Amino acid sequence: MIRIGVIGYGYWGPNLVRNLAANRQFEVVAVCDPREDCRDKARRSNARLRVHADAQELIDSADIDAVVIATPIATHFELASRALRAGKHVLVEKPLCTSAEEGEELVALAARSRLVLLVDHVYVFHNAVRKLREFNDTGAIGKLSYYDSLRINLGLFQPDVNVLWDLAPHDFSIMNYILEEEPEYIEATGYCHVNPVLPDIVYVTAHYTSHMIAHLNLSWMSPVKVRRVAVGGSKQMVVWDDLNLEERLKIYDSGIEFRPEKDRLAIVPSYRIGDVHSPRVPNSEALADVIEEFANVICGKQQSSVIDGAAGLRVVRMLEAAQTALDRNLGEIAKKRDVRS
Amino acid sequence: MIRIGVIGYGYWGPNLVRNLAANRQFEVVAVCDPREDCRDKARRSNARLRVHADAQELIDSADIDAVVIATPIATHFELASRALRAGKHVLVEKPLCTSAEEGEELVALAARSRLVLLVDHVYVFHNAVRKLREFNDTGAIGKLSYYDSLRINLGLFQPDVNVLWDLAPHDFSIMNYILEEEPEYIEATGYCHVNPVLPDIVYVTAHYTSHMIAHLNLSWMSPVKVRRVAVGGSKQMVVWDDLNLEERLKIYDSGIEFRPEKDRLAIVPSYRIGDVHSPRVPNSEALADVIEEFANVICGKQQSSVIDGAAGLRVVRMLEAAQTALDRNLGEIAKKRDVRS
Amino acid sequence: MIRIGVIGYGYWGPNLVRNLAANRQFEVVAVCDPREDCRDKARRSNARLRVHADAQELIDSADIDAVVIATPIATHFELASRALRAGKHVLVEKPLCTSAEEGEELVALAARSRLVLLVDHVYVFHNAVRKLREFNDTGAIGKLSYYDSLRINLGLFQPDVNVLWDLAPHDFSIMNYILEEEPEYIEATGYCHVNPVLPDIVYVTAHYTSHMIAHLNLSWMSPVKVRRVAVGGSKQMVVWDDLNLEERLKIYDSGIEFRPEKDRLAIVPSYRIGDVHSPRVPNSEALADVIEEFANVICGKQQSSVIDGAAGLRVVRMLEAAQTALDRNLGEIAKKRDVRS
Amino acid sequence: MIRIGVIGYGYWGPNLVRNLAANRQFEVVAVCDPREDCRDKARRSNARLRVHADAQELIDSADIDAVVIATPIATHFELASRALRAGKHVLVEKPLCTSAEEGEELVALAARSRLVLLVDHVYVFHNAVRKLREFNDTGAIGKLSYYDSLRINLGLFQPDVNVLWDLAPHDFSIMNYILEEEPEYIEATGYCHVNPVLPDIVYVTAHYTSHMIAHLNLSWMSPVKVRRVAVGGSKQMVVWDDLNLEERLKIYDSGIEFRPEKDRLAIVPSYRIGDVHSPRVPNSEALADVIEEFANVICGKQQSSVIDGAAGLRVVRMLEAAQTALDRNLGEIAKKRDVRS
Repeated sequence: MIRIGVIGYGYWGPNLVRNLAANRQFEVVAVCDPREDCRDKARRSNARLRVHADAQELIDSADIDAVVIATPIATHFELASRALRAGKHVLVEKPLCTSAEEGEELVALAARSRLVLLVDHVYVFHNAVRKLREFNDTGAIGKLSYYDSLRINLGLFQPDVNVLWDLAPHDFSIMNYILEEEPEYIEATGYCHVNPVLPDIVYVTAHYTSHMIAHLNLSWMSPVKVRRVAVGGSKQMVVWDDLNLEERLKIYDSGIEFRPEKDRLAIVPSYRIGDVHSPRVPNSEALADVIEEFANVICGKQQSSVIDGAAGLRVVRMLEAAQTALDRNLGEIAKKRDVRS
Repeated sequence: MIRIGVIGYGYWGPNLVRNLAANRQFEVVAVCDPREDCRDKARRSNARLRVHADAQELIDSADIDAVVIATPIATHFELASRALRAGKHVLVEKPLCTSAEEGEELVALAARSRLVLLVDHVYVFHNAVRKLREFNDTGAIGKLSYYDSLRINLGLFQPDVNVLWDLAPHDFSIMNYILEEEPEYIEATGYCHVNPVLPDIVYVTAHYTSHMIAHLNLSWMSPVKVRRVAVGGSKQMVVWDDLNLEERLKIYDSGIEFRPEKDRLAIVPSYRIGDVHSPRVPNSEALADVIEEFANVICGKQQSSVIDGAAGLRVVRMLEAAQTALDRNLGEIAKKRDVRS
Repeated sequence: MIRIGVIGYGYWGPNLVRNLAANRQFEVVAVCDPREDCRDKARRSNARLRVHADAQELIDSADIDAVVIATPIATHFELASRALRAGKHVLVEKPLCTSAEEGEELVALAARSRLVLLVDHVYVFHNAVRKLREFNDTGAIGKLSYYDSLRINLGLFQPDVNVLWDLAPHDFSIMNYILEEEPEYIEATGYCHVNPVLPDIVYVTAHYTSHMIAHLNLSWMSPVKVRRVAVGGSKQMVVWDDLNLEERLKIYDSGIEFRPEKDRLAIVPSYRIGDVHSPRVPNSEALADVIEEFANVICGKQQSSVIDGAAGLRVVRMLEAAQTALDRNLGEIAKKRDVRS
Repeated sequence: MIRIGVIGYGYWGPNLVRNLAANRQFEVVAVCDPREDCRDKARRSNARLRVHADAQELIDSADIDAVVIATPIATHFELASRALRAGKHVLVEKPLCTSAEEGEELVALAARSRLVLLVDHVYVFHNAVRKLREFNDTGAIGKLSYYDSLRINLGLFQPDVNVLWDLAPHDFSIMNYILEEEPEYIEATGYCHVNPVLPDIVYVTAHYTSHMIAHLNLSWMSPVKVRRVAVGGSKQMVVWDDLNLEERLKIYDSGIEFRPEKDRLAIVPSYRIGDVHSPRVPNSEALADVIEEFANVICGKQQSSVIDGAAGLRVVRMLEAAQTALDRNLGEIAKKRDVRS
């Protein structure tokens, strides 16, 4: 049994504790949160949990082998470093940290200490993403031409993070997992409507040397929640609508039709050309698989993980690149307005 | 009766002839197309139509007061100038022409000749767009924060036009009509998958001094046809899904919720907060209204039009700005790749 | 060229004329309607059509080989008999007539005169129905267990027909075409809300010796239009939603799962078990195929037709059986109320 | 604190325990199930629960004030009587029991003992049903003309109950709650495909003296799960689609249009006539409210309940009437087949 503690018992903490409790390799020993009401909630839910107010206390506990860090992003680096230094294995919520520099240090620290460092890129364990990777690996999609993500909802406006750092880690980790290729060039633009320094709408475009183009439409300002990713290839196209529970994935037989000029006379006969196939995507909870992976790597059942520190670092590097482009664009817009006024 | 001729009898020509024939102010006298099979099609559909192979012949016909130009974009300027010089009123398919320079000349020419020049920005007459404008004018939406368009389908790949010039005129004309404000700054990026010099996926972002941000996701590479425009404001948000025939427009009562930090503990309770209202949007054909407008302006029943040459020129200026940004980005990507290889 | 006349130029007449005109084997010679405005409409649409007010005049015209009857149902028998007696081939709108007795006479009359008598069971030529039959013929569905139709909309309340005779002919003709088996037992119930003698909601259940059960939910009182037919078999189940233009047919791999008692402990894992496949269903107009069939049988290119008089008679027999059951049930309800009051 | 025990820990038991635990008025003391694996599951989920194999043991426990009965329907009467005789308040899963005779005895027994007897008609506490009742009470719908329910899915085939007794209690309890009127006449038909004595498809029609007609399409043989109830009135129509999480309820402004004969010439212009409104339906768990109601009635905070034994008995009477009609129809079909063979 791996004895584990959870740092942060806010929105996500209860899900972590529930899934850790259901896993036969873990025993949840303690929970920690600076907020009194969160500690109360933890106590009520499970009388046997030890509850701390101070993270260092939990980190220093001799009866704990591993920790999960589910706190605001700005604290990830500090808490993860301290835990690794205290000899604990670490699973961090996404994104790993706030800069590539921090990420490199964490990866190095884990390597030196021979401890496990994983990042909770939960979508990498989602059955739809597994299918997408399988379609790509077997060549069913053909040569990839685009990845197009619409990830919008009415936001929980957070004081310490913008919509890019909140939502893009999902797409970046999915893209890296499916493609095993990093973009050569990232552009981003957007706008701040609610909080004057935190963009709430961001558009990211990533260009790949393989000529794929990826686009992310990220927003906290949409009345409708959409989670739609379209992946196009030379043979097939796939649309993953995560909120369509009965048909999450749809595969379109038809690809691009090259029509000779003369056919343009004809009215387009219908909205699509071939059959549509919707394979079964089981509804299992991806978080349970992340936790199983964490246990397996700690116990040596697995030598490596697709969500290791290095994977987390790659996502942070892409976030940094997108943030740099976003700052440049927002700066230019502001400058124009200043000049004019 | 205004006697009218239609230049170009390809995909759109038959719709124009049918709608002109149904209008009591027009008499369709002649049709012209250089392609033998198109001329045959015109003859079969209506035995009384005069059919020309040469556009100049039609333009020079003394029995014609007005022409509609439904030919490839590259020919719009030449044909429209000749028709105006021959004293004919002109309705051009969108976009008006291929450059602002050409557009200015056409507007000036029409003004000098006291002839009517309209552009078939057909969506400006769409009942959903009329409702959107009404919502904005009455203040129902509040201060606009974004315009987000997803306009994708499996393309009719055209040899002379890219996806920007094919699809963006719809959004640009709608945006100009609703907002009566032009963007101060336009960005664009994209990629060429099928034809190496014509982008088939383009993303456009437009920034407004009023702090609205507009985004267009334009693609000819999608197996599913989507025509979805979301407009967000400080009071309400509207989603227009043009392929949902029963509920084209949905208005969401709820806007952005400002939640205090402590509420972030709670699980997000549902995907949206308020009621949804779907007003009736009659299914009338917008093209019939464009044609009625053309007649009314020619006859002096209307002094001005929302789709006049100046409106067409504004759209062309936006297309030029987007194309410039797109060229710059595609150039930079190409340069990076050259340097590396 | 078969010279043809159309009797009745109301709602459906223009569609008939347009499709007959597009068919190379027919020449539309004349149209007839007692209503002045309908005759005007016919004249405006096609200057070359001869227009009659009196049906007998059209039937007696020597230059006509065949007629289409698109008049109120009560007149079908009289007009069809007269046309057959005058030596014309006849295509009647569905249903063929108002009683089995009439239907038998028409079939006999056509046989005696060696003339063609077809009924416009247009759905038999619909691509989705053709696929359904193919699935059944090849055994892909397995042994059929049910046919369930939801056919509801806001009705055009007609003074001379109830919702059973208006909508059930569609399902009855589809069922007969797919199954080649007639039900052994038909039940029906319903209610009259708007017109006190014409039911506007009717439920029909048909039992087959093959143990299939068919159910029809027919209504003119629904604010939403639904055209949904589900067909279940021992191997697969098919849902045909005729208003879902992109995915009209969906085939569900999974059938009934026989779960042992102990599995009932587990939470039902998801709403369906297998993959979903949506084959392409071309959007062609079925009426064009009905008209082509009429021409082919007249010209002897086809010896028989799936929409011949006998097929029309089978549908009328089922309508009669359902009407009898409906009358019995409505009578019993009325009797109960009388007794009580 | 009301000390409570749960009899039956199969599919529904864990939901009951979770909701009872979350309610401040209850303390869950014990659970009982004859199946070893179910008892294990109960022990693992909560170490403090006392677990019995024998129901009588639990019923006889002096430290228990109330019981919930979540066992197969055939055992409801026996267990509920014993619990009432032992002086316990009782909440029974739906339906209350297997016959009106049993139901009357239970109601009488509870009354004599001054104990609370409720039935878990959970939909009566569903927010969509509450809104439907509100619309009816305020007259917003107008005079009701129909209640039409499509309640189909791939069934958990149960050895002791048919689809009527499994699914109809939902509709019957909803209908009784909204209307406060019982049908005067119930018809039912159906078929047994899987288990030769238990119908898996059943159609029920209920006629009301107020001239409303109710129809239930119940099936365990559908690959797609549907939970759709349409309620029509003289002013508005409401469609409740319980699986459309974002827009569960839709209200259609338009009612029936009485069109004069001449308008039948025109093509039906669109699928619906007026606006559609979708009021917010909060996603709260109805079971929590049932349990709160149980506590409130026990404690005397409420004098009566909409889900009391009498309400449960009314539903059982309707089930009996439908079963009688179903048996008669299935008998007649079998007789026809016998005669013929």
